[in-house]
Amino acid sequence: MTSFTHDTAPTRYAERGGIRFAYRRFGMPGRLPLVFFQHFMGTLDDHDPALSDAFAGDREVILFDNAGVASSSGTVPDTIEAMARDALSFIDALALGTIDMVGHSMGGLVAQEVALARPELVRRLVLVGTGPRGGEGLGARPAWVGELFTRKYERQEDMWLPILFAPTESSQAAGRAYVERITARTDRDTPVSDQSIAAQRAALAAYGAAKDPSYAHIKGLELPVLVVNGTDDIVIPTINSYILQQFLPNAELILYPDANHGSHFQYPALFARHARIFLDD
Amino acid sequence: MTSFTHDTAPTRYAERGGIRFAYRRFGMPGRLPLVFFQHFMGTLDDHDPALSDAFAGDREVILFDNAGVASSSGTVPDTIEAMARDALSFIDALALGTIDMVGHSMGGLVAQEVALARPELVRRLVLVGTGPRGGEGLGARPAWVGELFTRKYERQEDMWLPILFAPTESSQAAGRAYVERITARTDRDTPVSDQSIAAQRAALAAYGAAKDPSYAHIKGLELPVLVVNGTDDIVIPTINSYILQQFLPNAELILYPDANHGSHFQYPALFARHARIFLDD
Repeated sequence: MTSFTHDTAPTRYAERGGIRFAYRRFGMPGRLPLVFFQHFMGTLDDHDPALSDAFAGDREVILFDNAGVASSSGTVPDTIEAMARDALSFIDALALGTIDMVGHSMGGLVAQEVALARPELVRRLVLVGTGPRGGEGLGARPAWVGELFTRKYERQEDMWLPILFAPTESSQAAGRAYVERITARTDRDTPVSDQSIAAQRAALAAYGAAKDPSYAHIKGLELPVLVVNGTDDIVIPTINSYILQQFLPNAELILYPDANHGSHFQYPALFARHARIFLDD
Repeated sequence: MTSFTHDTAPTRYAERGGIRFAYRRFGMPGRLPLVFFQHFMGTLDDHDPALSDAFAGDREVILFDNAGVASSSGTVPDTIEAMARDALSFIDALALGTIDMVGHSMGGLVAQEVALARPELVRRLVLVGTGPRGGEGLGARPAWVGELFTRKYERQEDMWLPILFAPTESSQAAGRAYVERITARTDRDTPVSDQSIAAQRAALAAYGAAKDPSYAHIKGLELPVLVVNGTDDIVIPTINSYILQQFLPNAELILYPDANHGSHFQYPALFARHARIFLDD
């Protein structure tokens, strides 16, 4: 298993509760596995090889399609909480024991619900480009941002350039490097279905609509959390990362300059260093 | 010079423009020196040996009393901009060439003005527990916080426990360790005079009163900046650190949990790692 990398790890399948989950698992076994939770419309192929391989040097990395997403069977539910129950089914199917988690965007919301539902499962949590339940503008994207998710491109992965990276030369160059990395693998995951996208959109809207200025919901997340984002996140506004740090019981915040919703993809080496300091501490 | 540490470096003096500046300089020469800018009421002895010595392993560290402060001659001026001119006199007295800077609290304001006044002097800037000109609540501390600066203690350095550290067991324990570190040196700097304190207080109030919601003033700080603070800074509210990151052209933000105005003293090893990643990049 240790000889596989992000690009060579085979897609495998695990069954639980009638769902057949697609996943990739690679890296050095021994320490706690690091499980990545994927964003809106994302598949196994949208995770960044530069990040997975940076962590896989001394621990196992696990990427998965949640129920109904891409190569996994089942139906995407229309709440974040139900997505978390599906993710727990996957984790139970692999009998992982304690894990660390990285959740990006919608994956960060699901990861929070997983940690709330099963506190003893999760040791540490990294949240990138995400927010708390009822966060500001969460699931209520401006129309011009929503439209970015529906555009058609010759190479469809180019849709992530304006969504995940800032409109500057430096950030777009980092974005093109990211797209090269995620398109390098030849055996591709299945694209997400229209049903999946609609259900994910409904789940995001419902989660964002659950307003509570006291953010009491996340007070139960007592584990150490590292919150990361770019200066100006157009998908889940950056202020939500600040709110997470302020209202979580034990959170560190890192904001990177010149960056948008995919700051960890923009600075993979720096993010990996920061995340490893946090995770290895 | 390399054999000196924070605790053994002799206090030396440099003259410029009629002012005799007290300073300590130690560490490994070769790379750019790292100059520390001190907070309200602070002297040479309030810098943290754990931090200076963490940096002094591979670069020179310079600590100084600005004009009118403690062992330096002259009078403390009543504006931050004039303090920056005094600091530039000191830097010129040492003919330092290019430097990196760490500014804490009021020292962070002075450091910003130094970098604005002489951009070619400063390569990188670390700002801890500080804010922008006109920042929220800057120089307008609530009465209960102001009162913390006037209390008398058997060991006067204990005044920093409620000011720099959070009211939790873990943070106060880190605070006591900090006070042990800063009181270890036997030949002490002179305490700040009442005139110095009054002038510093007036300078902080004037700087905080210069409101501009567009924070255009800091747009001129084009160098890379690392902004650091604790979750709940009672002296210069933490939101100012977020504002700095949002309005500076090129800034990274790190906020630490369970921490107040002296987060770098609470987590000296972690702060040094983060700052070194930023400074060495």
